[in-house]
Amino acid sequence: MRNIRLTVEYDGRDFSGWQVQPDKRTVQGEIEKALFILTGEKIRLIGSGRTDSGVHSRGQVANFKTESKIPEDKFYIALNTKLPEDIRVIKSEEVDINFHSRFDAKSKCYRYSIYNSEIAPSLFRDYFCHVPYKLDIDKMKIEAEKFIGEHDFRSFMASNTDVKDTVRIIYDLKINQDGKKIYIDIAGNGFLYNMVRIMVGTLVDIGRGKINMDLEEIILKKNRSFSGQTVVSKGLSLEWVKYSC
Amino acid sequence: MRNIRLTVEYDGRDFSGWQVQPDKRTVQGEIEKALFILTGEKIRLIGSGRTDSGVHSRGQVANFKTESKIPEDKFYIALNTKLPEDIRVIKSEEVDINFHSRFDAKSKCYRYSIYNSEIAPSLFRDYFCHVPYKLDIDKMKIEAEKFIGEHDFRSFMASNTDVKDTVRIIYDLKINQDGKKIYIDIAGNGFLYNMVRIMVGTLVDIGRGKINMDLEEIILKKNRSFSGQTVVSKGLSLEWVKYSC
Repeated sequence: MRNIRLTVEYDGRDFSGWQVQPDKRTVQGEIEKALFILTGEKIRLIGSGRTDSGVHSRGQVANFKTESKIPEDKFYIALNTKLPEDIRVIKSEEVDINFHSRFDAKSKCYRYSIYNSEIAPSLFRDYFCHVPYKLDIDKMKIEAEKFIGEHDFRSFMASNTDVKDTVRIIYDLKINQDGKKIYIDIAGNGFLYNMVRIMVGTLVDIGRGKINMDLEEIILKKNRSFSGQTVVSKGLSLEWVKYSC
Repeated sequence: MRNIRLTVEYDGRDFSGWQVQPDKRTVQGEIEKALFILTGEKIRLIGSGRTDSGVHSRGQVANFKTESKIPEDKFYIALNTKLPEDIRVIKSEEVDINFHSRFDAKSKCYRYSIYNSEIAPSLFRDYFCHVPYKLDIDKMKIEAEKFIGEHDFRSFMASNTDVKDTVRIIYDLKINQDGKKIYIDIAGNGFLYNMVRIMVGTLVDIGRGKINMDLEEIILKKNRSFSGQTVVSKGLSLEWVKYSC
């Protein structure tokens, strides 16, 4: 038995997210179908985590066990011939039989893409969240620093989620502006449900002056009602997953 | 009577190009519909030129005559409320009654976007031409310089076109690489049918070593059979149109 790790890019537009669901088109489902065509085996693919409907990825990681003899560095090429064009496997490698994409993940990075202009974009509109308000980027950068470190992120979790341990570590958070485009890159050891989208929504609400509470205080409240909006999924992309520190 | 000039961004994916055609969804057609809803007038919109099916724009220019009293700087806002989301008017201004978007255009710039990687892109795949071959970018840059200036571009015109004057001036041609993305920006006083796509296809064929003839010589041949492939329309975008030198 071999354990193969894939790095996967996908365009989230036409998927009901990563995870297999009955009668829905999902990324995991499509890759499992392609693996079946390729190997004849009913393979269960393990992703580093789910991504929601509409969320994109440049570096999702997933692994699976197989008896197939396809060389590790040929798997991605073979898989791409069986996959729809909105999924591309960009790397394949054989890993230790005990490697587990979800349990072994040490850190992840998400990028959130904003198009900040009075007028909505027509081009690339499926990959950006349109924010028509004037934003104070400098203030957003100052407040964003306060996310870094280990915190209880209960204020930044979808309210009807049943999770006990809401402590996570944010390693890095960068805000970059390129004309009308604003990119927010957030790396952490793990993320609660909707956490990135609520973090970004809170930064946007701070930037437009809708939220005036200090971000440290919002974190300390441990209450979803003090943080900002949940921004739309189409602006979100899973950039990478790392397995060593 | 007033003359209003619009600057228009559009996502070419779902359009049969710019120009009105019976039973086809076109950019001009959609804007004329929106103008009718807004003003009650059957307005004929004059574009700076056609763009083909699938071609995008960040700065198409068009003008129209109207009796409407909508202030010049409010027209784009009003129009956007009546337009589909794949067209955005980004500017509107009143111009001299004799201004003509096509006849008065002095120069135009097109951008061609290439994704150069063994693996096709899933994300943004409707906006890039996938080129899987290794390209010699330095050689492409050296050859590209030879396009600049006044030349007879007959070698770079779709072969079954009936145009007498095939002399055009290329003012500038820049090739920029950003990771796997290559952008080719071409500014000129006018372009023949498919000219940009054949110029880019020829540069790609030179970069991958499929064409070895000197570009100066290809130009001098005045014969389509010596130039390269016509690259796909989805990589092309009209960036701007200028009306003064």
